[in-house]
Amino acid sequence: MLEKLKEEVYEANMQLPKLDLVTFTWGNVSGIDRDAGLFVIKPSGVPYETLQPSDMVVVNLKGEVVEGKLRPSSDTPTHVVLYNAFPDIGGIVHTHSPYAVTFASANMDVPALNTTAADTFYGDVPVSEPLSKAQIERAYEKETGEVIVKTFADRHLDHDAVPAVLVSQHGPFTWGATPAKAVYNAKVLEVVSQIDYQAMTLSAKDNHVPQYLLDKHYYRKHGKNAYYGQR
Amino acid sequence: MLEKLKEEVYEANMQLPKLDLVTFTWGNVSGIDRDAGLFVIKPSGVPYETLQPSDMVVVNLKGEVVEGKLRPSSDTPTHVVLYNAFPDIGGIVHTHSPYAVTFASANMDVPALNTTAADTFYGDVPVSEPLSKAQIERAYEKETGEVIVKTFADRHLDHDAVPAVLVSQHGPFTWGATPAKAVYNAKVLEVVSQIDYQAMTLSAKDNHVPQYLLDKHYYRKHGKNAYYGQR
Amino acid sequence: MLEKLKEEVYEANMQLPKLDLVTFTWGNVSGIDRDAGLFVIKPSGVPYETLQPSDMVVVNLKGEVVEGKLRPSSDTPTHVVLYNAFPDIGGIVHTHSPYAVTFASANMDVPALNTTAADTFYGDVPVSEPLSKAQIERAYEKETGEVIVKTFADRHLDHDAVPAVLVSQHGPFTWGATPAKAVYNAKVLEVVSQIDYQAMTLSAKDNHVPQYLLDKHYYRKHGKNAYYGQR
Amino acid sequence: MLEKLKEEVYEANMQLPKLDLVTFTWGNVSGIDRDAGLFVIKPSGVPYETLQPSDMVVVNLKGEVVEGKLRPSSDTPTHVVLYNAFPDIGGIVHTHSPYAVTFASANMDVPALNTTAADTFYGDVPVSEPLSKAQIERAYEKETGEVIVKTFADRHLDHDAVPAVLVSQHGPFTWGATPAKAVYNAKVLEVVSQIDYQAMTLSAKDNHVPQYLLDKHYYRKHGKNAYYGQR
Repeated sequence: MLEKLKEEVYEANMQLPKLDLVTFTWGNVSGIDRDAGLFVIKPSGVPYETLQPSDMVVVNLKGEVVEGKLRPSSDTPTHVVLYNAFPDIGGIVHTHSPYAVTFASANMDVPALNTTAADTFYGDVPVSEPLSKAQIERAYEKETGEVIVKTFADRHLDHDAVPAVLVSQHGPFTWGATPAKAVYNAKVLEVVSQIDYQAMTLSAKDNHVPQYLLDKHYYRKHGKNAYYGQR
Repeated sequence: MLEKLKEEVYEANMQLPKLDLVTFTWGNVSGIDRDAGLFVIKPSGVPYETLQPSDMVVVNLKGEVVEGKLRPSSDTPTHVVLYNAFPDIGGIVHTHSPYAVTFASANMDVPALNTTAADTFYGDVPVSEPLSKAQIERAYEKETGEVIVKTFADRHLDHDAVPAVLVSQHGPFTWGATPAKAVYNAKVLEVVSQIDYQAMTLSAKDNHVPQYLLDKHYYRKHGKNAYYGQR
Repeated sequence: MLEKLKEEVYEANMQLPKLDLVTFTWGNVSGIDRDAGLFVIKPSGVPYETLQPSDMVVVNLKGEVVEGKLRPSSDTPTHVVLYNAFPDIGGIVHTHSPYAVTFASANMDVPALNTTAADTFYGDVPVSEPLSKAQIERAYEKETGEVIVKTFADRHLDHDAVPAVLVSQHGPFTWGATPAKAVYNAKVLEVVSQIDYQAMTLSAKDNHVPQYLLDKHYYRKHGKNAYYGQR
Repeated sequence: MLEKLKEEVYEANMQLPKLDLVTFTWGNVSGIDRDAGLFVIKPSGVPYETLQPSDMVVVNLKGEVVEGKLRPSSDTPTHVVLYNAFPDIGGIVHTHSPYAVTFASANMDVPALNTTAADTFYGDVPVSEPLSKAQIERAYEKETGEVIVKTFADRHLDHDAVPAVLVSQHGPFTWGATPAKAVYNAKVLEVVSQIDYQAMTLSAKDNHVPQYLLDKHYYRKHGKNAYYGQR
């Protein structure tokens, strides 16, 4: 079932090592079929070298495995929460890419300091608040999804305009209209995190872009007046 | 038309990923035929893996597309301004290379701290002043070119001796006698930015090279008394 | 003798350059057959390009060469001490990987700041105390092993839960149930050291993970209740 | 003439891009035949992709070209001074490798903070004093050699025990018994410079290795009591 989506999710997973976003098996991509109410996700702990499209696991929006011989990613409950809370997204990515994890380790947002950020993220990429002891012991991966959703709600952020988050002291989750777009956003976040790390250790000033530059670059690439790329 | 120039501009564009200067499609190279008054530029948002010489777009010095099935780079109006203002240059490059963007994000010049810089840039590579809200909303890419030209005029810089600029909170533009030379300058700027970032986070002193060392290295490679390389 | 183990140790050694953990010949892996009381180790100073499984040297737990045409790694006496002190480990790795050596140079632990660390190391990776002049002049490589063992004893650390150490101003040793697991731990230590270096130069705060997050991530992957990966 | 030495110098030059020590043509290696009183050096400004053994230029110890169709490296007069001053060395390397140039830009020695340094350099790698205006205008490349020699004399350094220098605000020169050994030393200097940069931005303490650790590691690999590697 969902053979085309499995292929698409497999290809998106294989982009992670190609884009230098994962070490060993530390990453996963999923993609959803909204009509079927099912998503497809990488199995847990399988090396990219041996991964096959048929290894992908099919899961429903309650987090139950519907098809698949292998166990799904241990982060599956986080994906379930995000698909339920953000009904317009089509794919989700989690990695431990080193510059994004640097900001997560320091519990700091990745600020919008330049147009490289503004082209993709309409403002700072937020770091979540830390999970409490109770949350971690109760249902860790599910609560990870809940804290992401709460971060966007508390800070009045639009998850389509800022399709990324850092989970405190953990790492990045990104999403998008498709699995491939979510992978694209994961790479942009890593590049922006590298540049921001460097800019912030080079200069102690607050170098946020002004709102009108953020508007210009974001809307040059997004929305009905976008004019970047081919029609 | 301009088949040879298209090939040359295509080859120069393909150097950007080879030299680790671009992520995804975030860069463009153009080259000009001064006799024809036309330049050739990469199409907007086309991946390097599928790019062909025949995809290059021909544009005149008013910024009008003269030939080409695809839309030209969204930065085309910036190239137009630079070709008109700097009548001796033959090629222009724009990238989001991470160390150069680091200095742009911090609104800092890339200083001449060593002979690696002095061999190519006769002094600091300037960061432009920020574009105003009015400039950004009026004609963003054209105004980007204007602010580059104004930076060189205000600071009495020779655009041949310093063939590079950082647009404030955006990134580098470089140029040269040919598209290939402009790409060379883009790589030098990235390497010098990396070294400068490291030297400036290692030592808080002002480590500018003295004028006579700058003269020696720059003129060892440029002008009628140059003696580096083969005749 | 021990042909299968030689092959395994050879393969583990060849992972070091593939995982960017060594420059030139600066690294070694060994693996032990506990029943035979013998271990197999890389010969000293042989380039990875020419290394063969048959070059591996067989050594007993007194440090005597039992088989092999080549001299064993100069660090062999350190391996002997560790195999004797830690009777459950099956493989040992030593490298000069640059981020781990950065912390060793600064005589600093690699702290647990994020789940990337917590997945593998149940707490900070310790730096040993420095070897004294007498220790260095007496039996340097043997004393290196002794100081590692003393570090774990003095700090009440479990060498299975934290399978890595930095020898002061020298570099990392890691171990594991097999040579391949020890190599895995060496790569994790390098990645965690890179992220920690970046997080600590970005933020001066103490960003240690709380104990309950450390527990959650470590026991998600280790012990009888682990649920990461396939069964 | 000197066909074997040309091949050896060619091979050593080709190691520079393989070891990530050069960008474009920014590096050169030479090797000397002491009996003939002649050395062989890379031609100036020739790309590594097209370089051939037959392109190597033969130069005598007065700096005169004895054989070769191409112009020798513009740094040839520096090599001449070093071969005359250090009569036991067999090869010389110059690069603009970025971490070594970082220390040169900051006018700082590369300190011995760890055994990775101590294995190759018996103490800190010195940065030269700056060349004066008169020296630079007089005979720049020859004076570069003279200031290196003066640095070793003034600081009472043994050029065999510390086979490397940073020319102030310029970059590294290294040497060795053969061209290949000089290349090896150039790579070690770059790796040590990277680690030192990181250790010094991580910790403000003076983390020099004690003399007895320096002795142990240096003499483990050098001199009549060395026991690293194969006999």
